[in-house]
Amino acid sequence: MKRIAVDMDDVLADTMTAYLELYNQEHNETISKTDLHGKAIWDVIPSDRFQKVAGYLRTAHFFDDLPVMQDSQEVLRRLSGHYEVFIATAAMEFPNSFSSKYRWLQQHFPFISPLNVVYCGDKSILNADYLVDDTPRHFLRFAGEGILFSSPHNLLVNSYRRVNNWREVESLFLPDGKPL
Amino acid sequence: MKRIAVDMDDVLADTMTAYLELYNQEHNETISKTDLHGKAIWDVIPSDRFQKVAGYLRTAHFFDDLPVMQDSQEVLRRLSGHYEVFIATAAMEFPNSFSSKYRWLQQHFPFISPLNVVYCGDKSILNADYLVDDTPRHFLRFAGEGILFSSPHNLLVNSYRRVNNWREVESLFLPDGKPL
Repeated sequence: MKRIAVDMDDVLADTMTAYLELYNQEHNETISKTDLHGKAIWDVIPSDRFQKVAGYLRTAHFFDDLPVMQDSQEVLRRLSGHYEVFIATAAMEFPNSFSSKYRWLQQHFPFISPLNVVYCGDKSILNADYLVDDTPRHFLRFAGEGILFSSPHNLLVNSYRRVNNWREVESLFLPDGKPL
Repeated sequence: MKRIAVDMDDVLADTMTAYLELYNQEHNETISKTDLHGKAIWDVIPSDRFQKVAGYLRTAHFFDDLPVMQDSQEVLRRLSGHYEVFIATAAMEFPNSFSSKYRWLQQHFPFISPLNVVYCGDKSILNADYLVDDTPRHFLRFAGEGILFSSPHNLLVNSYRRVNNWREVESLFLPDGKPL
């Protein structure tokens, strides 16, 4: 059985939407995902706001109420029948998020065993055949194949197979309903 | 550069000593590590205490004050110059320990980047050449070589290369001062 590692933020959880909502509310602005085509948040906001905005991800409860990415629950449950599925999140950059992320996964992906959840930093430590992630730098030293999950910031990257949504993840890993 | 993953409990941290101290104090007993030769704690205590004793590891602050294993800091620092060192702890079984373990590692092993710390459950997810661990079941599906770090409970296991202390870890990985 092949193994798929799946990132959490902006792949299972719609972190970017929650992030922009918070930013727009605090600064009375209307930045949308479209404004972030090929850019990071840092490319579109004034530098004197960097510190505060970076702090969003360091808030203990930021991760509690993140929306779930469309179709991710149904597709991941299907994949779990044909692959070993691990969830791998770069939580070490945000130690305050540990408990909040754990609760969120238990709530929305109860069919994934906690033993298949990994908090890490450098994702090259993962022993998996595939890594579905929105951050291409994690693929540089990854032992398997990186599959780029589309997010505004990575839309200009062309070096990896790309999936635009969870239906495309399903088609990629279960063509004709069978595993690769 | 080869990569070594190192377990935390009973390899870097002397969890067993803290555990027995707590148990002996609460129950007015004198169980020692010697009493645990080839046995788990469950083999030597009455079953009506199982639930409470299992709860020790679920206490948020249990991990805060764990003693550091002799020579582990000095040897791990030396190994870091010749290997990629990751710390991999089965924290997913004890979600309350997340923050406490993180603080402990930062305090006692500040030369290990948080990006090289992994919280996991099933350690077969680790992509490393070696895993130094006291729990042999983690080696069953591990892709590299498991190196068994002696602990009372594993003293009857003969299926893996064994190290009895951190000086032996040093001799194994830096024979003549050079990496394998």
